[in-house]
Formats: sequence, C-alpha cells, structure tokens
Amino acid sequence: MDDFSMLPVAADDDHFHEECGVFGVFDHPDAAALTALGLHALQHRGQEAAGIASYDGRQFAIERHIGLVGDTFTRKAVIDRLPGSRAIGHNRYSTTGGAGLRNIQPMFAEFVGGGFAVAHNGNLTNAATLKRELQRRGSLFQSTSDTETIIHLIATSNHGRLLDRFVDAIRRIEGAYSLVALSEKKMIGCRDPLGVRPLVLGRLDSAYILASETCALDIIGASYVRDVKPGEMLIINEKGIESIFPFEQSRSRFCIFEYVYFARPDSSVDGRGVYAVRKQIGAELARESGIDADIIVPVPDSGVPAAIGYAEASGIPFDLGIIRNHYVGRTFIEPTDAIRHMGVKLKHNANSAVLKGKRVVLVDDSIVRGTTSMKIVQMVRDAGASEVHMRIASPPTTDSCFYGVDTPEKSKLIAAQMSVDEIANYIRADSLAFVSIDGLYRAVGEAKRNGSAPQFCDACFTGEYPTRLTDHEERGKVQVLSRLAEAS
Amino acid sequence: MDDFSMLPVAADDDHFHEECGVFGVFDHPDAAALTALGLHALQHRGQEAAGIASYDGRQFAIERHIGLVGDTFTRKAVIDRLPGSRAIGHNRYSTTGGAGLRNIQPMFAEFVGGGFAVAHNGNLTNAATLKRELQRRGSLFQSTSDTETIIHLIATSNHGRLLDRFVDAIRRIEGAYSLVALSEKKMIGCRDPLGVRPLVLGRLDSAYILASETCALDIIGASYVRDVKPGEMLIINEKGIESIFPFEQSRSRFCIFEYVYFARPDSSVDGRGVYAVRKQIGAELARESGIDADIIVPVPDSGVPAAIGYAEASGIPFDLGIIRNHYVGRTFIEPTDAIRHMGVKLKHNANSAVLKGKRVVLVDDSIVRGTTSMKIVQMVRDAGASEVHMRIASPPTTDSCFYGVDTPEKSKLIAAQMSVDEIANYIRADSLAFVSIDGLYRAVGEAKRNGSAPQFCDACFTGEYPTRLTDHEERGKVQVLSRLAEAS
Amino acid sequence: MDDFSMLPVAADDDHFHEECGVFGVFDHPDAAALTALGLHALQHRGQEAAGIASYDGRQFAIERHIGLVGDTFTRKAVIDRLPGSRAIGHNRYSTTGGAGLRNIQPMFAEFVGGGFAVAHNGNLTNAATLKRELQRRGSLFQSTSDTETIIHLIATSNHGRLLDRFVDAIRRIEGAYSLVALSEKKMIGCRDPLGVRPLVLGRLDSAYILASETCALDIIGASYVRDVKPGEMLIINEKGIESIFPFEQSRSRFCIFEYVYFARPDSSVDGRGVYAVRKQIGAELARESGIDADIIVPVPDSGVPAAIGYAEASGIPFDLGIIRNHYVGRTFIEPTDAIRHMGVKLKHNANSAVLKGKRVVLVDDSIVRGTTSMKIVQMVRDAGASEVHMRIASPPTTDSCFYGVDTPEKSKLIAAQMSVDEIANYIRADSLAFVSIDGLYRAVGEAKRNGSAPQFCDACFTGEYPTRLTDHEERGKVQVLSRLAEAS
Amino acid sequence: MDDFSMLPVAADDDHFHEECGVFGVFDHPDAAALTALGLHALQHRGQEAAGIASYDGRQFAIERHIGLVGDTFTRKAVIDRLPGSRAIGHNRYSTTGGAGLRNIQPMFAEFVGGGFAVAHNGNLTNAATLKRELQRRGSLFQSTSDTETIIHLIATSNHGRLLDRFVDAIRRIEGAYSLVALSEKKMIGCRDPLGVRPLVLGRLDSAYILASETCALDIIGASYVRDVKPGEMLIINEKGIESIFPFEQSRSRFCIFEYVYFARPDSSVDGRGVYAVRKQIGAELARESGIDADIIVPVPDSGVPAAIGYAEASGIPFDLGIIRNHYVGRTFIEPTDAIRHMGVKLKHNANSAVLKGKRVVLVDDSIVRGTTSMKIVQMVRDAGASEVHMRIASPPTTDSCFYGVDTPEKSKLIAAQMSVDEIANYIRADSLAFVSIDGLYRAVGEAKRNGSAPQFCDACFTGEYPTRLTDHEERGKVQVLSRLAEAS
Repeated sequence: MDDFSMLPVAADDDHFHEECGVFGVFDHPDAAALTALGLHALQHRGQEAAGIASYDGRQFAIERHIGLVGDTFTRKAVIDRLPGSRAIGHNRYSTTGGAGLRNIQPMFAEFVGGGFAVAHNGNLTNAATLKRELQRRGSLFQSTSDTETIIHLIATSNHGRLLDRFVDAIRRIEGAYSLVALSEKKMIGCRDPLGVRPLVLGRLDSAYILASETCALDIIGASYVRDVKPGEMLIINEKGIESIFPFEQSRSRFCIFEYVYFARPDSSVDGRGVYAVRKQIGAELARESGIDADIIVPVPDSGVPAAIGYAEASGIPFDLGIIRNHYVGRTFIEPTDAIRHMGVKLKHNANSAVLKGKRVVLVDDSIVRGTTSMKIVQMVRDAGASEVHMRIASPPTTDSCFYGVDTPEKSKLIAAQMSVDEIANYIRADSLAFVSIDGLYRAVGEAKRNGSAPQFCDACFTGEYPTRLTDHEERGKVQVLSRLAEAS
Repeated sequence: MDDFSMLPVAADDDHFHEECGVFGVFDHPDAAALTALGLHALQHRGQEAAGIASYDGRQFAIERHIGLVGDTFTRKAVIDRLPGSRAIGHNRYSTTGGAGLRNIQPMFAEFVGGGFAVAHNGNLTNAATLKRELQRRGSLFQSTSDTETIIHLIATSNHGRLLDRFVDAIRRIEGAYSLVALSEKKMIGCRDPLGVRPLVLGRLDSAYILASETCALDIIGASYVRDVKPGEMLIINEKGIESIFPFEQSRSRFCIFEYVYFARPDSSVDGRGVYAVRKQIGAELARESGIDADIIVPVPDSGVPAAIGYAEASGIPFDLGIIRNHYVGRTFIEPTDAIRHMGVKLKHNANSAVLKGKRVVLVDDSIVRGTTSMKIVQMVRDAGASEVHMRIASPPTTDSCFYGVDTPEKSKLIAAQMSVDEIANYIRADSLAFVSIDGLYRAVGEAKRNGSAPQFCDACFTGEYPTRLTDHEERGKVQVLSRLAEAS
Repeated sequence: MDDFSMLPVAADDDHFHEECGVFGVFDHPDAAALTALGLHALQHRGQEAAGIASYDGRQFAIERHIGLVGDTFTRKAVIDRLPGSRAIGHNRYSTTGGAGLRNIQPMFAEFVGGGFAVAHNGNLTNAATLKRELQRRGSLFQSTSDTETIIHLIATSNHGRLLDRFVDAIRRIEGAYSLVALSEKKMIGCRDPLGVRPLVLGRLDSAYILASETCALDIIGASYVRDVKPGEMLIINEKGIESIFPFEQSRSRFCIFEYVYFARPDSSVDGRGVYAVRKQIGAELARESGIDADIIVPVPDSGVPAAIGYAEASGIPFDLGIIRNHYVGRTFIEPTDAIRHMGVKLKHNANSAVLKGKRVVLVDDSIVRGTTSMKIVQMVRDAGASEVHMRIASPPTTDSCFYGVDTPEKSKLIAAQMSVDEIANYIRADSLAFVSIDGLYRAVGEAKRNGSAPQFCDACFTGEYPTRLTDHEERGKVQVLSRLAEAS
Repeated sequence: MDDFSMLPVAADDDHFHEECGVFGVFDHPDAAALTALGLHALQHRGQEAAGIASYDGRQFAIERHIGLVGDTFTRKAVIDRLPGSRAIGHNRYSTTGGAGLRNIQPMFAEFVGGGFAVAHNGNLTNAATLKRELQRRGSLFQSTSDTETIIHLIATSNHGRLLDRFVDAIRRIEGAYSLVALSEKKMIGCRDPLGVRPLVLGRLDSAYILASETCALDIIGASYVRDVKPGEMLIINEKGIESIFPFEQSRSRFCIFEYVYFARPDSSVDGRGVYAVRKQIGAELARESGIDADIIVPVPDSGVPAAIGYAEASGIPFDLGIIRNHYVGRTFIEPTDAIRHMGVKLKHNANSAVLKGKRVVLVDDSIVRGTTSMKIVQMVRDAGASEVHMRIASPPTTDSCFYGVDTPEKSKLIAAQMSVDEIANYIRADSLAFVSIDGLYRAVGEAKRNGSAPQFCDACFTGEYPTRLTDHEERGKVQVLSRLAEAS
C-alpha cells in the first residue's frame, strides 16, 4: 500500500520504541519556532506525527501533522499559524489509539473557564476503565487517545478553578506520564508519582522551558535547571514558577531502558549522562562475558557507545564493520521475493574489507524479536568474518511495557520464549551474551538491583510492574475499539 | 489570498444562500455512491464542503472534504473508504461555526450504546444557550457547529434507549431543521415542528431514501413517496419504516423562499413544482407591474423561469440578452483596479446584438445588496439598450433569516434601508418593481397571505419570525466565539 | 481510474469539440492576468489544459497546467511567476499529441536569435510528414504536438531574421491554424490562407489584443477592432502594428460549425453575431420541418437559441422542459451497472411538471453518435411527454474534421451510417429533422451554398475538404506514435 | 521561502558535493525497482532529484522527481509506471543547468532510429561551446543540462547506426563523465578517457548491472565483476557484453577526492576499499602532525574512519564527543537572529560529559569555507574542552573542480585565501594540520605523488587540471544563461 511507504522505515522493527517526546516554552517571542526545534531534537522519541499548540493571549492555535517535525514545521506558513509567546509540543511514535490524525497531540479542549491544551509522554493504565465511566455520564470522546481521558476528567470535575480540576483529574489516573499543559494563564509540567518518564526544566533568557531530555535544551541554547521530580507539578505563569506535590510520596522508579536505548546519547536523564552509562554497560559486558576476538563492531548506531566501552575495557580494536545508509527513512516497495529478502541492506551494509577473516564481536543494545540480529549475523558472516559473537547491552527483554513504550506482545519477545542458548542458535551466532541485571544497575551507578525495592522500573526485564495495570486486568470487560474507522 | 480562490465565486454575493442539503440511503449495496450522487444533485444548496458517513454493520466511516461533491466523492478510493449499505450525507454552504474542517457534517459520536452520525439542514435558534449549559456540566465541544449541541444533548439525556435519548434531545432544541441520522440499527429523518426546511422520502428498489429535494431522488432513479411532515420523525430499520410525532402539533410554516430561489426548478418541494411557481410569479409580476417594452431578458440563470412567465403573460418576446459563462466557479485574482472593476463580466456578458436599441425588461429573482443589479443594469445599458426596467420575482427582502440561510445583517439589506424608488435610483434602472407579498402567495396557490396565521415562513419579507430567537435575544450574554483559531 | 475523474465530464461526448482557444496581449502591465481572463472567456474552446507565456524584456516565463484556467491561473503566485507586459495564452481540449503535460501550449524555443513562444488553434494536415523530414536531419522532438513542428521549421530555416524564418516556416505547413506568437521584440497573429479558424484584433488602451472570439475582448473591456483576415499576418511591436500577406491569395473558407456550436453565443465571429445566426437556424428549422406541438424544449444549453428561434417562428411556447445541473464538471465513479445506466441524469433532469401529457419539440444543435439523443428522448418520454419530435440545428454530420476539431472517426458518426429515418428510429423519436445545408447557409446570410465554390468550410456535412490532407493520405507510411509513454 | 525548505539541509554547506550517481540494469524483471534500490544506495552522490528510465520492448517510460529516491520511488504506482526488464537511473546534487525539473536526468530523445535515454555523472568542459554550434545549425535545446548536448550530437551525427553516432558524439565532448545509456537494443556504460569518475560492472543472476559504486551492487545482492576502464565503452545487449575503446589511450587520472569524501566508506572504488584508505589517511595524519591529547573526536559522520585511524596510530582513545541528529534532512525556518545563530546544533550537539576538561583532537575530512569548522570548534570549547586541535584528512582545497563536483568559486575557498596558520586562527583552533599531498598519495598506496605525471586527478589541491577547460577559457563569449525562467 502506498500509505505504508509514508511510515518510518521498518528497519527498527527489532527495537522497543519510545512513544513520545514533549516540549514547552513559556514567555518567548519565538515560542512555536523554539518548540519545533525542541521537538526536532526529540525526534528519536517519536517519528510518526508531531503537533504544536500555542496561545497568543487571545486564542489558541494548533497544528498537528503526520510525519517528521522537519516535514511540516520547517515551513514559515505553519509557524506563522502558531502565534504567541507560549507553546507546547509533542512527538508521537504511535499510541494506543491508532494512527489517525485525530489522535495526534497536543489535544485541546474548551472548558467554561477557558481553553486548555495538553500533551503527554507515557501511558495511562486505567484509561479505558475511566473512559467507560465518563461515557456513561455523557462525555463524548473524539479520539481513542488516553490523553482525552484526562481532559474529560478535568471537564467533569466538581472543583471550581481550572488548576484544582486538573489536580483532581490526575489524581484519578494511573500509569506513567510526563505531561505538559497550557491554559490561558499557565504552563504546567507534571511527572507521575514514580517518575517513570523523564522531564526536565530549562531556562532561555526569561523563558521557562520544559523538555523530555536535555538535548532539546541544548538545541535552542537553553540552560538546564533541574529534572522535574517524581510526583511534582510545576506551575509557570507570568509571575514565576511554583512547585506542588499533589500525590502521596513514592520512591522513584525511573525507566532504566531510557539509558539502554530511548534517550539520545548526548542527553542527561534523571541526572546521569546517557553516553557514559552506555559505555559503562559495554565495559560491564566485556567483564562479564569477554571473549577472544580481533575486532569489536557496533550494530550502528545504537550499539556504538557500548561497543566503544567494550573495546576500551577489552583492549580489542573498535572498527566500523557495518555501514549505515543515512538516507533510510522510508520503506521501499518489494515487488518480488528476491527483493523482499534483501530487506536489511536498505539500512546497513557490511564493510567486507574490515570483516574478512576476522573474529568479530558484534555489540547491539537489545534483542526484541531476533529477526534483525539473525540477518546481521548472516551479513557479517557473508562478508567473510570467521567468527561472530553477539553481545547485548541489556538483559533479555522478557515482558511487555505498559508505560508508553511500543512493545510486541510477550509471545513475540524472543527472550520470553527461548533461553539464551536457544537464541544464540536461532540467530546463528557463535556465542551470545546479555549484560546481567546487576551489571546494568552497576552501569547506572548502583551497587546492584535492590530486589525488595528496585531503584528503577525494569519491568521489561523482570516482569515486576510498579503500578496497577487496571485496564489490562479488566481486559475483555472494557471496550476499547473505536466504532469509527480511522481515516487514512 | 490563495485560499480564497478555492471558494465558490463571489458572483453570487447578491443572493441569499441556502446553507445545506441532506441525503440518506438505507439498505442499498451502493449506499455511499448513491449518496454522492444525491449530494451532487443538491449541490446548489451548499458548495463549500460535503461529507458522507456510512455504516457497514461493524464500523462507521466518515469522509468530509472542503469543495464540491464532485471534487472528492468522484474518486473510487474515497467511496471505497465508505463501505456498507447505509449512508447519510450533507452539503454545506457555510454554518454558524466557521469554515474549518471540524465543522463539516455529518458529525459522529460514540455513545455507550453505540455510534451515531447526524447531519442537518437548518439552524438552531437556541444552540448557544444550550451549549453554555452543557459545558457547565462537563461536556466538551469539538466544533462550533450547532449540530454538535444535538449530540451532547443525546449523550447527557437521562433516558435509556438511543431513540428515546434522541427524542429527548430534539424536544429541547428550537429553530428550523431537517435532519438525517444513522445509528447502528436505524436511519432517522426528522423535520422541525413548523417544517421550515424541506425533506422528502423516496424508494429505490428495497432501499429507503431521504433527501432535501426531489431532484436528488430523480438523479438515482428513485421514486418519490411523500414529503416528511412538519414535526414528523421517520424511523427506518431492517423491518421497515415507522412514523412518530414527538412534538405538540403546529401549523406548517414552510420557507417560501425555497420557491423563489433555493430549490432547483425541477424539484417539487412541499408538494408544489418549483418551476411552475416561478413562472407564475413572473406572470403575477407582469400583471402587477407590466410595462411597455421590446424584449424580456432574464438575469441568468435564476431569473429564467420568471422571465418566461412574464413574457408569456405580457406577450413580449423572451430573449437571451445576457450570456452566462458556464465555467465560472473560482474567483480570479484582481491585480489592478482596472481588472477589479470588470468583476461581473466573469460571470455574465451582455449580448449586444440582442440588446441594441431595445426597451428591455430585466427579470431577476431577488435583490439583496443591490450591487450586482447595478452592474447588470449598467452592462445592459452599455450594450445599447434604450431603456432598462427591472422586475423582481420576490418582495423586498427586509429582514435576516435565522433558520439556516446565509443572509447579510439587516443593515446590509438594501430593501431595509431604501424605498423601492430609492433602489431604482441606486441601481439606475428606468423603473423597478417587486412582486407583492400577496402576489407571491397567489403564485404558490393561496388566495392571499393570511395575516393572522401566515401559511409560510416569510420572515425575510415581513420580519415575522415563527419561533423564538433565544440566542439572538441573549446575545452578549452567550459566548459563541471559539478560543481555538480555525486551521486553514 | 482516479485520474479519469479529473477530466471534463463525458457529458458532452455527443458533440464535436473545438480543440483550442488563443489569446495575446502586447503592452499592458497586467498582461498575464488579462490573458488568464481572456482564456477564461474562451474556456468553451478547450477545457483540458491551459498555458500562458509572458516576456518581461529579459526572460520568458511559462506556466502550463492541466485543468480549467480557473483551477490554476486564479492564484496570485502563478500570475506572479508570469511577469512582463506581453503574454500569449492557450486553452486546449486535446490535441493530436495526447494528454501529457509536455504537449500543453504555448510551446517555447530558444533560437540563436532569441526566445520564441507560440500557440495555435487548428491542426496541421502535413505535420507528421514534416516531422519525419526534420528528424532525419537531426531535429529532436520533445512533444507529440504539431506546434513543435513549426518551431523546428523556424530553427532550421535558411533565412536570417526571425520574422523571415517564421514566414518561411508557415509557408511549408498545410491545414487550419490561427496562431499567436511572442518573440523578444514582437507579438504575431496569423490565420491560415483559408481563414478556417477565427482570430480577432482588439485594443485596450494602448495595448493590442489578439483573441479567438470577441467574448474574450468583452471580458477585459477591450474594444473590437477587426477580424484578422484569412492569410494575414499581423506583426505588433513597440512602434505599432503591421499587416503582411505572406501567402498567395485564396477565397475564405471559414468553419461554418463555429456558428452551429463552437463559438460562444455572445461572440461575433467572422463578422456575424453567433446568437442571431443560431436563432435564425431555429427559424429555418421551423419553416423546413415544422410540426404541430404544445411546447418547444431546448436541450440545454447549446440548443437554447435555436429553440427560441423555432418557438418564435412557429408560435409554439418555449419552455424549460429539461434542467441542467450547473455543477457538472467531473465524471462520477460508477460502481454498478445500475448507476452506470443513469449517466445522463448527472447533467440533465427532466422537468416533469412541464412535460406531462405534452407534444414536445426537442431542439438540439447536432447529433454525433446519437447515444445522448436517445437517452434524452427517453427521459422526456419517461417524464410524461405524449410525443417527442427532435429538430437539429445543423445538417447531418457525415465526415470527420481534420482542422483542429475533435471528431470521432467517420464510422462512429451516426449520420455516416444511417439515414434520417433510421436515426429517428434509433433514438426513438416520433419524428426527426435536420436543417438543410442551404437552410444553414441562409441562416448565415447567404442565398444558398455555392456548390462550385463553397463560401465556408462545411466538410463535416459534405466531405469536401478545402486543403490537401497530406498526413491522412500518407497514413501507414508516417510514424506518429511516440516511443515515450505519456506520464500521467 | 517555503520551497527552500524542501532542499537538503544546508548543514553540509562546508563540503564539496558530488553531483551525481548513475545506475543501470539490463535484463531483470524488476529492473526499475532494482534501479530505485541502487540509486538509494548512491543517495550520498546526489540528493536534489532522481530519475529512472525503463524500456519494455515497445516504449520507454521516464519518471523524474525532485527529492530523495525514497520520497517518490518507494511508491508502487511510480514503479508500476516504469515497466520492462531494462532501466537506467540517476541521482543529482545539482547541475550546471539549474534546479528545474526539465534538467533532471535521465534525458530522453527520439531519433529516427529509435528512442534513447542517457544519464551521466561528471561535467563536460566544452558543453556550452558545442551547444552554440548546434543551435546555429538548428538544434533546439529544451534544458540547460550538458547531457542534452550529447543527445544533439548524436541526432546530428553523419553516421548511420545509432552506436556509431554515439561514438561520434562522445569523441567530440571533453571533460569527465561516467555515463549509462539505454537504446531499444542496448545498454551502454562509458567512462571518459581519463576515468575521472567511477563506474563499475556487476551481475545479478543473468542481469548486467552498472553502478557508480560497489555499495549499489551490495544493496541488491549483485556481485562485483570489475571497474569499467578509463576510456572504455561497454555495450550490453541480449547476446552479451562487448567492450570497445573508442578514444586514444590515456593514463588514468581517477578523482582522489572520491577517497577523501565522496564515495561511501563501504564501497570499493577504482580497486581500493574506501574505508581502509580513510583510516590510513588518519594514520598518516597522526604520523605527520600528532599532538599530545586526551581524546580523538570525529566530526560525524565523515570524519569517523580517519579519526579511528588516527586513534589507533596515536594510541589516544577514540570517543564520540559530538552527536549527530539522524533526523536532519530539512532546513528549519529561522524567524529571529537568535535562532539563526544556533544553526549548527540542528545537525550536531556536543557531548559535554565526554569533552569536559579534555584536550581534544577533532578529525574532519576537509575544510571548504571554514564556517562550520569555526562553529564546531566553538561548540566543543563551550562544552568544556580545555584544548581543541583540528586535524584534516585531506590537503588544503585551493582550487575549484570542473569535473562534476559542486565547489565554491576559488575566492570562497578558505585555503585559497589563507595560510594554514591563518585558518587555525580563523576557526580558533589551538592547532590545525592538513594531511600532506604525499601523505594522501601514500594512503591510497602510492609511494608519493608523481609530479610530472600525477596518478590521480588532484586539481582541487594542486590546480593541475588534466583536461582542457574550453568553456571556462571562452567564458564571456559563450551565452549559457537560459532565456526561459525556471519554473519552481
């Protein structure tokens, strides 16, 4: 189908995918343009669609478009339709609600008390349950996004002031979320009580900035102030900034996978530099499962920092044995089986001159389904490698994520179905090792995982979910499918 | 502006404009294609946008597009996205809600009990007042269309079954409306208690058809069954058709202007052939204000039937002294004053050979602002006419319409500001006459207007509105502007 | 296919089609905008594509687009890309060269001596023969349009000055053409020696205007100066206008079908008012083949003037028994046989109230294939007419046109295959009559057709072609198909 | 301007740009799809536009589109419009002829003897001179591309057979070119006598493949057969492959800059692996101008192989101190000065955690204008580096290229205007060194540059051009500007 060719290439089909990035600017004359730049820096967190809402003191304006930020928000006409000194924005990979335009964030609502735009990164684990209740009392849903659930909770709250209604609403939601919102008076940034998803505060001259990662501060030259705390709500208005904690206090459970793959290597999230953590995971890997070899070759680009760390720790040379095509960005049609089977080369090509006759350690960040790993091992072998050893910079991913990450069902996760030896066999590697869960915790600076009170959310490796999964438990009882076919 | 060039030409800026046409099909394999054809036949009732919703027994699908029906709904891909044997559709001229895509009908909502699509022709006179109440209790509005008000009334009704909720909802609305709706089980057609706007029932094989005018039955070869009655609700399901009257009984007040201009001449509305009525108005004009002349010339195309009727009644020859360009459909840019002033010739050109040296009676259907009439009189005079007498096939339009017709404010209506003599002077006609209100009533078959209980809605000629104008009276108290800028 | 839906509706598939209109402006600051307006007035001569070339004293600019003039040339951005005080333009129905963008006129070439743009209305009867010769000596053709042949003849002429080369070139071409050309110094207008196609000269202030018909002068307020004469070449430059006659003198053979159907009724072509001629044909028809009836009904819109003439001459009332849908402009998809068979109603609907129980004389301008006539007769009968008599305002069309008119092959022309009685039977009319060839000549003001030296080109009625048909005679020997597939 | 946002980002404005890549397939059922894949692998050689011509045994088809290969040629509808088992394709960065659609290759011509499509990588140094001659004898040029000159030379050749005409034509052209052509019988591949630009031959099953680089063979799984030799013409038809040498023999002068920057690192060009050469240049740099430092940081991505080579040779750790945003691909609008000055961060961000307090050696492939280097040095310093030393993997670029590479005028080349010390000062580096010309020759395997008969074309470093520069010498006498404004 033609439309499929508009989606980001399936080359990353063997990764988990972060579902969203958020950004906000309060009090800067170029608010929408800065937001576009911030979203561009956060593009890795969501490539399917992007949206920006701005407020000019009189009206809100919203632009939401399928595609990369740079496909649309580089046009002057689009930015000109987003006037005002306040703006929030959102990148989306995909959501629970399907790919339709009506699900792109930010979402906007008109309350009796004024307009309100909101965007969030994460996933509510009781959205369907709440939606069913709201519909029963007469709320009409326009999208299948769980963000809209928050809006209806605000609209139907018994409280008076908008801020009180908002607090009332988020107290009723469960799950992981870092959200930014814009009312006619305020910009709000908020993290869930466990702080699963990241959110940082920055400043650019007199403006306040909210962003999922620090790399989005860097692109606009903003300075990093601090991370928003788990359970904290920052309320920014013309007079300044206020911090409240509307929830009972919890221990932080930041998503450890942000360090493994999601965050950009030049970002600092939850107080740690991502690149340094990844190199350290590589070093842990070398220590835990080192092997005699001639070269360390990263699977580009996500495996590069861990491969450098592995090479440094092992003393084996680092080399680019696989070259990435920078222009991959669209799927190609595949008219025959012959062409279909060459899939992986659209993204990567083996650098035969480097690989020929060598014992190769391939370093990748994770294995989800195993299909890409199998093709890459084969490609490296076809290019003349005498041995191919795979080292993975995360523990086996055995469980699905319910906190805003696009993961296959558990039955599709290879590590949920096979032992490490079986996986090695399946991908035809001469050897395979994953970093241990304690090795991963060491790489982020902990002594080891605290089994009784884990310092991070690591549910995808351990199956220990830090919140209730209300909708998941009620599955079957809750109708979540839309009765309206998605427009293409 | 570029976008403006996409709108229908301003050539008709001197007419009232019908705001909508509706159509529905229940139980035909080509439901969406037939609806597209029906809307095409009703294109004169609304040229700005068109939409179709269909239901295939499992899901609803909606396509809504700016432009003519034929611009989009001629494409197989669009029709293929509208599967199912049931469909409703809508043409729009413009609405109270602005030109944005989110205001195009049909509107769709998901109730606890199932999906529901609705489209209407008309205008609610208490929509803003109801909206304010609904917002206070937590309803979120996504559009500025008053159709959405009906949907929220259904959603928040205390009744159980969808049909009961629907009846409950329409009992609360005031104004003029002919609406078609589609639930998962039923198609519903309904006219307001006064039957201001038209709606007819037809059959095509086993399928039921609803349409604003009979010309939309003709195009698909459907037979005319009857007009839906004022205050009647037709409920069509797989078992057949049912008629209920949910309102207290009222006397019919059908819009008399449908005969003057809105309806297509080959349609029969409210039981009378439109072409015959228009010829009869021309005959009344000849009787009331005949004048010695050489030729009767219609202002094409709306003046043609009345001109033929005038010519027959007067015995003066009918001739095409003004030729219409069939390809007018877009505004042209106007880079200089010289070009701007030639405006009217884009649509019409004088046929000098016919007009030279002649005493001309020009026949038009109505005068709204007078600017077009002035240009046409001048054009005919420039082409050599020795005298130009204007005869108008409606009484002077002195008052705005609040029932779904796009009319200028009263202050812009020339007949509200000037006497007939002053208008004649303004448009530089040698003489000017309008048909009398009783002459118009005679043309539709009445002896005369019944002043104490008028047989039709003729508010635009008399200022006597047959319903309350709640929002209009509350103006200032009700906030109707959106806080969200319309996307282009 | 989707693309087909972009073409003008097949509703006129039962007419001959004029292939082109041309227009030119020399020395007006709004040259391109005026040309767009002129082409809009000439839209009836070609609806498939339009193009404008302008010259600003330094460079030429060209815009060529599929669709109506108003689809593209209403946009300011397009007009702004056509700077300069000189411009020529062209409307196309279709050409010998297929529908591709590369065949849209004006065509442009860069000679050693400067740039040159040219557009023509007509058809060369020796283009393929000349193209073969030119290709042999090394000329490369970029299009399949015969206009390009003229350009290559100029490029390869042995003469020195561009004007001499141009005269040299057109002396080698045969057929019918009215062309406008723009060099860096001059605008040129030229009619073929027989003057088959029309071309008029006008003035707007100090600017000279060239146009296919006078209606294109009217739209911009230009005054009519005179018709360009058969075989005349007008050369317009900054100093004024010059007339030369580069051919041997011939007798005029203007296309009589321009009066029957092609030209707009408000135009005057070759010195006669088109509307008056058409009414006169109707009067001739009434005299030649009058019949007792109740009403005279035109097939809209082309049959209207003849019907009025017939009604006046016969004393039988004129009435609109068939209503045309103004919004027809695109073909509709036809998913089932049922829908396919309703074809004609997209364009026309019978006005039953007028037709019921009446003896009807239907007046149309011509019959080409007979299929539309058959449907219309049936539609009128279905609407209740008791008798249907068809009267045609032209003689039977028995032969194809090779002079720039899109006609079916002779074998598809019903009048080449059947007698009048057989046609009457085929279309199921109670009676059928065509105007006689002498009746047609009388309507244009001649006593009768001069059989030994006909005053007009009437080859489509008589088979007597006024020029050689070189390519047609050489058919089989000349390769005219392109080796390049047309892009859609 | 909106349109500008469609061009590849200016982020590479500080590099030379290869102007083209070519690809061809003879005798494979998926010829067009394979060509699209091949062009995708060659995307680095030209990002502005792409085109494919195919031949199905009956007709040629061409698709030419602005943008990346993946923007258009991923669509099934586009590939389906390119039927046949033979195809050639072309990527373009930009050409001498401007950015218009009419200049996109392949170009197509219809000769008396049949159709012919051709695409080339390189630049003719006597194209304008030949064009002037051809125009004088009557040839009409449709584009401003020098490829069209070749076509006219074929069309006007005195020889009989197409192949003889082609040989006749290329004997008259001067400059650098690797071209692929498709006639109705043959596919032809040809390199200029000096072999300046690359071209390789491959096989996929029974099909022959031609490609600019081996990476385009890899993507489709084709095997590498050999490089086409300088001055060689390969003629491929149904019977097999033939090699002829139509020129006098010359010594090879392959472009040495292909190793420095143009070719993809996983390609092998002119017999040498590109990645290995680049690492070797880094090693030469470390030897020639090593300096005491803490980390070696590549400017991504082009500096990575040389940086790895430098790090290995020097023993200093390699680290990713600069992170590249993978989603750069469009320019962003820049509404204020503040935003304009942040330019470089759209593409790169400093990895502060790695750089803080370190003595950094930055390795880049070349310096053209110096503006990007200055910004990167500053960015690294702002991130906390204590020293920043720049090492460049090519000699100073002092002269423009006339062989198909987009280079600034000599006056804009910083190395033509400043000494190395001055450049170091300008870019504010603590030290700066370029590899020596002999160091570069050593990296490609030569002992040193042979001054009297250089083994490569290195004119951009030395000013010694291996061919005549006819047009350049005649500049002023030859009119190369078009008289037709480019359509956008």
